[in-house]
This record gives sequence, C-alpha cells and structure tokens, in this order.
Amino acid sequence: MTINIIVAGPRGKMGSEAITMIEKEEAFRLVACIDRKNGGKTLKDIENQPALDIPIYDDAEACFENIEADVLVDLTVPKVGYIHTLAAIKHNIRPVVGTSGFTSEQISELSTLAEEKKVGAIIAPNFAIGAVLMMKFSQMAAKYFQDIEIIEKHHDNKLDAPSGTAIKTAELIRESRSRKEQGHHDESETINGARGAEFDGMRIHSVRLPGLVAHQEVIFGSDGQLLTIKHDSFNRGSFMEGIKLSVEKVMELDKLVYGLENIL
Amino acid sequence: MTINIIVAGPRGKMGSEAITMIEKEEAFRLVACIDRKNGGKTLKDIENQPALDIPIYDDAEACFENIEADVLVDLTVPKVGYIHTLAAIKHNIRPVVGTSGFTSEQISELSTLAEEKKVGAIIAPNFAIGAVLMMKFSQMAAKYFQDIEIIEKHHDNKLDAPSGTAIKTAELIRESRSRKEQGHHDESETINGARGAEFDGMRIHSVRLPGLVAHQEVIFGSDGQLLTIKHDSFNRGSFMEGIKLSVEKVMELDKLVYGLENIL
Amino acid sequence: MTINIIVAGPRGKMGSEAITMIEKEEAFRLVACIDRKNGGKTLKDIENQPALDIPIYDDAEACFENIEADVLVDLTVPKVGYIHTLAAIKHNIRPVVGTSGFTSEQISELSTLAEEKKVGAIIAPNFAIGAVLMMKFSQMAAKYFQDIEIIEKHHDNKLDAPSGTAIKTAELIRESRSRKEQGHHDESETINGARGAEFDGMRIHSVRLPGLVAHQEVIFGSDGQLLTIKHDSFNRGSFMEGIKLSVEKVMELDKLVYGLENIL
Amino acid sequence: MTINIIVAGPRGKMGSEAITMIEKEEAFRLVACIDRKNGGKTLKDIENQPALDIPIYDDAEACFENIEADVLVDLTVPKVGYIHTLAAIKHNIRPVVGTSGFTSEQISELSTLAEEKKVGAIIAPNFAIGAVLMMKFSQMAAKYFQDIEIIEKHHDNKLDAPSGTAIKTAELIRESRSRKEQGHHDESETINGARGAEFDGMRIHSVRLPGLVAHQEVIFGSDGQLLTIKHDSFNRGSFMEGIKLSVEKVMELDKLVYGLENIL
Repeated sequence: MTINIIVAGPRGKMGSEAITMIEKEEAFRLVACIDRKNGGKTLKDIENQPALDIPIYDDAEACFENIEADVLVDLTVPKVGYIHTLAAIKHNIRPVVGTSGFTSEQISELSTLAEEKKVGAIIAPNFAIGAVLMMKFSQMAAKYFQDIEIIEKHHDNKLDAPSGTAIKTAELIRESRSRKEQGHHDESETINGARGAEFDGMRIHSVRLPGLVAHQEVIFGSDGQLLTIKHDSFNRGSFMEGIKLSVEKVMELDKLVYGLENIL
Repeated sequence: MTINIIVAGPRGKMGSEAITMIEKEEAFRLVACIDRKNGGKTLKDIENQPALDIPIYDDAEACFENIEADVLVDLTVPKVGYIHTLAAIKHNIRPVVGTSGFTSEQISELSTLAEEKKVGAIIAPNFAIGAVLMMKFSQMAAKYFQDIEIIEKHHDNKLDAPSGTAIKTAELIRESRSRKEQGHHDESETINGARGAEFDGMRIHSVRLPGLVAHQEVIFGSDGQLLTIKHDSFNRGSFMEGIKLSVEKVMELDKLVYGLENIL
Repeated sequence: MTINIIVAGPRGKMGSEAITMIEKEEAFRLVACIDRKNGGKTLKDIENQPALDIPIYDDAEACFENIEADVLVDLTVPKVGYIHTLAAIKHNIRPVVGTSGFTSEQISELSTLAEEKKVGAIIAPNFAIGAVLMMKFSQMAAKYFQDIEIIEKHHDNKLDAPSGTAIKTAELIRESRSRKEQGHHDESETINGARGAEFDGMRIHSVRLPGLVAHQEVIFGSDGQLLTIKHDSFNRGSFMEGIKLSVEKVMELDKLVYGLENIL
Repeated sequence: MTINIIVAGPRGKMGSEAITMIEKEEAFRLVACIDRKNGGKTLKDIENQPALDIPIYDDAEACFENIEADVLVDLTVPKVGYIHTLAAIKHNIRPVVGTSGFTSEQISELSTLAEEKKVGAIIAPNFAIGAVLMMKFSQMAAKYFQDIEIIEKHHDNKLDAPSGTAIKTAELIRESRSRKEQGHHDESETINGARGAEFDGMRIHSVRLPGLVAHQEVIFGSDGQLLTIKHDSFNRGSFMEGIKLSVEKVMELDKLVYGLENIL
C-alpha cells in the first residue's frame, strides 16, 4: 500500500531532506507541497528542488480539499504548523509534525479533535530515534542507579548550556529516580563550576568545542560498575528515520501521540 | 520486615562479599551458612571471615530443617548448587542462585517444582544490573537500528574471544533485528580478522590488554547518528546490587524466574 | 608579510575549501589558479567558485613564469601534482602538496632538487593535524607500553579494512616498540576474527557503520592503567588547518619535508 | 648488572607493592628497608610482608652506612622523605622519591647537593607513566589547538574538584597555548556551573560517581576534528612501571630530575 504524503515547508533544510527521503521510499508518494511563497508553481520550478512535477499550494485548506492524501509532514514553524495541523485533522489527513513549540493548550485542543475524528497524529519535539531511545533507556536505568551524571557536547556556537536535550533527559530521570545529593557531602570546588550544573542532585556538564556536532552521554555509577548511554548526532539525516517511522505509525493510530518515545 | 538469609559458599570471593553486603543491609539478616568443609563451626572460627556467631552446616537438608530462613543465596558451583536449590524449594526457602551452569532439564525441573510449591526462585547467570540492562536496551534498540557492532574489552588473561556476554548480547539482538549483512558488499580485509567476528551479519571485536577489567559497548549506527550502550565492570562489587535486588524480589514471587532481566 | 599563493585544482572539494581558507587568512593572498579545463578564464567565471578576479592557467610553467608567487598549494592528482611540484621548485615557488601517491623515486628526486635550489617544499599524505599528532604520540607512547590495540571506525561505504591510517600508525609504532605477541598465549577465537587483524603482535579492529565518519583510537595498556589517543574527523575542514600551517612553515624551509609530523 | 635497592616505607600500600615489584625484576635486588617502627627486625618478622630475610633499619643514616646500595626508593611522607633523600645523596645512594610534597626550597637544595656530588636523583609527584604522557602530549598538542576542555572523573569519595592532575594539566597547557576565552561570547548558563570551571579560558569538568576510579580526558577541538588524550587508572599497579623505570634511569643520571616527564 502506498502512503500519499503532503510536505509543508519544502524549502527548509528539514523539508528538503524529507522530500529526498520520501522519493527514496517505495511505499511513500509525495503528492503536494505547502509553501506560502510558491503557490501555483510545481516543485521543479523552484531552485535547489528536485525536478518533480508536484503541485505547490500556498493555502493549506485548498491543498487538503484538492489533494487526496494520507499524511501531512509539517516541517514549518510552530505558528503556521499549528494551523496546518488543525486543518489536516479536520480533513482526515494524519499530521506528522516536528516541533517543540506548541503550547500545552494547543496540544490539548489538537488531541481532543484527533480523538473525536479518530484521526492519527504525531507531534515530536525530536525525530532522532537514537536520542529518544537514549532518554527512554536513561529513565529506565534510573530505577536501579541513583548516581547519574550527564555530559553533553556541542559546537562552540551554541548559546545555551545545558542543552535542551540534557534538561529533558534530567526531567525524565527525575520521574523514576529517588532524589539524591550526589558526590561526597564535604566535596568542594577549588574553581567554581567544576562539578557542573546541579539538577535534582544530579550533575550536568556542557562541553563546547569547534569540531563537535551534537553529542550526549548519560553515565550511571554504582559500586564496581558504570552504565553509559550515549548518542552522537552528526547531521540532519538522523531525523529522517524518525519521520519515516512516524509516517508509517501514524497510519495505525486513531488519536494524537506526543513524543516519538510513545511510539517506540 | 527482616529477611532471614542462608548463604551457601561463604568462603568464595562472591560468598564473602555477599556476607558483607547482608551485614550492611538493615532489612537483611544472615542466619546460617552452608560450607561442606566447616560443618559444626561458626563463621567467626573461620579464617578471613567476619567475627559473627553464625552456625555453619555441611549438609543443606540439615540446615533447612533446623534454621528458620526466607532465602538461600547460593554462590557455590553448579553441581552442588543444583542440589541446594532443589532442597531449598522443598523446604519453602526461596533460592537466589548465581550460575549459568544449570542444564535446561535442571531449570525446567526446578521451575515445575517451584510452581507446584508456589515458592519464589531466581537463577541468574549475571548479577551485574548494568550488564543486564545493557543487554536489555540493546535488544530494544535493535528494533530500530539494523547496523550494530559490539566491542568487548577484557584483561589479557582471558582465554576465549568473543566473551560470553558479547555472544549472549548478539543472541538477544538477533531475536529483535531483521538479519543484515553489514559493511559494504565489496569490502575486503587486507589483514585477516580486521572486520572482527561475524554473528548474524553483525560484527564483534575483542580487545585484550593488561589494565583492562571487563567492558563492553554495543554501537548502533544509522544515517547521521550513533547510539552506544556501554558497561564497565571494575570489580565484584557490581554483582552485590543484583543479589540484593534479587533477595528483595524473590520474596514477592511464587515461581522460578531465570535471568535478572526478567525482574528488572 | 603577505604570502602569495597559487592553488592547483581549484574545482576539487579540497581545492575549493583551500580557496575559502586563503581568502579568510589576512596574511595569505590568492594570486592564481591552475586548472587544465579553464585556462584563460578567471575564478569568477567558474560555477560554484567565489566571485574573485583571479587568473586561471591551464599550464603550470606559464603560470609560474607570469605570476609572482611564494607558494603553490597543489591539490590535484599524483600524476599532475608531480609535474607541478617539479616545475614549482625550478621556479623558486615553494610547493605544499597533499598526496600519498608519489613514488619514493619521485620524492627522492624532488628532494634533491629542492636542496640544490634551497627551496622549501612540503609533501603531506595527511593534512589533519589531529591525525598526525595521534600517530606521533602513539609512536612516542609505544616506547613505554608494549601492549597496544587500534580500533578504527568508518562509515560502511569504506572498502578496505584496516584503514590506511591504522596501518600507517601500526608501522610507526613498530619502529619504537619491541615486538610482542599480545593476548594470552592460550587464547582462542570461538568465532574467527574476534581478535582482529594481527600486525607485529598488535591487534587492529575495523568498525564499519552508517553514521560513522572517520575515527581512530590507539589504546595502550599496562598493569592498572590505560592510555588512549583518539582522533575524530568529521569533515574536510580538518585538513585546512594543516594546509595553513604548511604554507606558513614552508616559507622558513630550504629543503623538502615529507609528512606533516616533521614540521610539528 | 644488579641494582641494589633500599625501600623506605615498606608497610605502606605503595611500599608493599614496590617490594613485590623489586622481587619480580631480575635486575633488581632488595637489600634493606627503612621503617621507624621495626628497626632491628627483618622483613619476614613483619605481618603481611613477604618471607624475606631483609634487614630493617629505623634510622636512615645507619642504614646507608651499613648497607651497600645503589638506589633508595622512598615511599614515606614528605617530612621524613626529605631527610632520607638528603642523607642518601650524601652517601652516594641515588634517591627515587614519590611525592608532590617537597617545597621549592627543598627541591632546590637537594638539586644543588646532587649536582655537587654528581649523584642521580628522581623526585616524581606522579609515577603513572600513562598520566605523565597524557600531560606531556596535551602540552604538545596545545600548540596546534587553542580550544581545549578537560573532563576528569573520580569516585564520589573525592573531596576536591577539579583534581590535582587536571589543574596540573591545565597549567602545562597554559605554557604552550595562546590564551583564548572559549565558547560563544554570548553563551549563557541556564543552570550555574554547566560550562564547568574556567582556567585561562579553558574549561574543566569534574565527574564524581561510585564505580569510577581515576580517569581524565583532554579534548582538543578545531574545525571538523577532535583529538582526545585519555588516561584511566584502575589501581596502584599503574605506579610500579614508573618506579621501575625511575630506578633504571636514575643509575644513568648525575643530577636531580623533577617529574617523570623529564626522563620520558
């Protein structure tokens, strides 16, 4: 069975790689794109796009009314993506949305609508399966290991420390770990910050160097042993497997699922 | 509630550490030992043992008849351990046994008996919780990553390669991974063995160096990302957490469980 | 002082990045390119090249006669590169050549000529400073550690195993290590290849996975300790630092140096 | 040629392992011990010591006058060690001392005396060859990489962070690296300490977990590449290679050398 797919945001880096991925997959077929700047054209008219005779709509409603599609892959920005997602569910087109930018009210509203219409939907803040598994396994391991440190490493253009993924990981661990102040209770820093950021008694360390891309390891220690769960992300290709899996899984759903971890 | 424990094999390295662990745990109480060489003595009479007034039996049956105990921790050899385990179940004492040496017939027989008597029992080839989680997570991750290599590292006194844990891990992965010949189909070794041991299309590499203890990492690769699950074992202390957990869990069981992964 | 540079091979991936690097460096100035396909044009006429008014020659001799230059950066293929290098030295232009493809006769001839003319020249099989330091440090450490294993990891499109860098590293180590058969003398492989490729008693392991780029670690073990030297190469950017350093150093030389390690 | 050795501090953990090491080495011979508690006895009279008929002196002067020795291996405390070292040089016995506790005045005085008497002497704050090489290589690499972070990992009983070795490494790097504030100049910590301890613009991260022993990695990053130098220390055995090497090298010296790095 072929899955017919609309891509919103085809000119973005993610959108562009998603189109390449869809073209490669036998069971997937690209049927239309949504792009506010290129309504009425086809994909092959656009610079740096594959030579495909795929219609482009600048309006989501019009697209969903004219095109027979199973899935919408939305890789735009949260504001636009929310409107697309709402419209898709109304038209019985299953949305797969890559964003961490929806408010809980928006997610709750979309969830109610999907349930009423019995339409599958997936919203994922992170499509890298490896990163999501790292978080899931960390949460599971935290039941058996109370002493945990996280080291995340990124290129030195990154502004925030710790990374969003490190904080998300620590939050998930907190749900299954009984709180503990780690390290010796008399330990002291001879230079401030040596012991890293404190989160519920755990420690998070942020390394920033040119040459690094995006890496995280979660280290669990107990007497005589260490368990380490590590993810390295080198490029956007890591997200495509997650989008592909989501397109397949959303076909079997009749409600909204938030987070890739809940379909793994 | 205090759990009363008999230790079989108190003079071995594992048995001796188990006694130390039991002494430290508030909820555990050591009530007797089984040691074929020191029947009739007490622990404090034995060299290198703690100064405890704990009776030693050379015969398991006699021990189980005379001592009120909840759990038998057996850290002897398979042949003796089997006889102890059988007798313990018959006396409604829950066995926790660390061995990979029982035959499937023996396990099956013990399992039937435990079910009839509604007595909990745990037999574990590996008590290191971290190693067991590494294997469990590897099996889970293999559903999403087909390309997997295992690197295991041990001290250079080890005779067999790959290690038992590496082969066990590969077997578990095989259950959830669709078979794939890895590497480029035209790849060639300019020196034999470079690409490691082949197992169901996966590759296993065995490093042996002085300074190493016991380490394994399982690496999952897909486009643009790597997921690595790693376990380092530095000393026998790593097994004590698993024995402790097993003693607690066996109190809640009414049948035999094989493998720590099935109580995690 | 500004260093005037000619780049041979401007359309290749390395050449193209070298031009970008030269443009960024204050002390460097691009004065001409050599490209057999685009003689008579300027760089800005060529697709995917920066909009620079730099003359292109299809003939090296003509270029060296017409252009005042200090350094030739040659990033072509060995056959052409050899002719360029020879001509450059004759014209008192210092060549910096990235290749492992010259024969020892060619290197010897170029070396003699450079010495006669007192012209600096650098030929480097590998411009990644990190990789060259890894090899240099490994050779130094091998004086103190006899037990050494190499793990190299590459993407699964690589055809040969072990990698050229791994073999080169092992050759350098052999020069400073007294030969030793590693591992237990009674060790045995239950699956062929587990212990990796054997080189002078050392072991080399080649991991091939999608997601990997180019990585190598050299592990030195002795009683109670491990020393690990590791290099990760993520993209061609890693070579630019080495080319930059070579351009600076070649100005101070009056003979040919083979291998970046000899200027570090 | 056999080297005759006196060990001061035979009952300590280091002293006791040193005696075992000396007994194993064909070219070494233990001729006496200095131990203020057991003067007049022999080694075999002392609990937990090997059954050797080696005389024990409680006074260093008396020992050096009565015993023909080439080398003193001093593994006592700084205060006593200083007196022993001074006396040894005066008696033409070459001291090998493991301590970071001598003042610069003491080192300077010992150095002058050794030079006058033309007696070799080695004082080493760290005998682990791997750790010393890690520091040496880090200092060398820092000439070519300005962006450097250090991650050191120790068991959670350690009181100070960063470790002494991490600070020593950073000091050595500072000597060969041009100062740089690392990370993005607009980077900010959403939790204090995430970016670690700042030292001359570098960052140091201290991980503390049960299960860890003593580990350090120094990571050098530049465009497209990483170089990592790592040392793992698992037990005191790692120091014995360094003591052995020092005993051999001190025989060839005619002055005092401070730090193992200066004989490697």
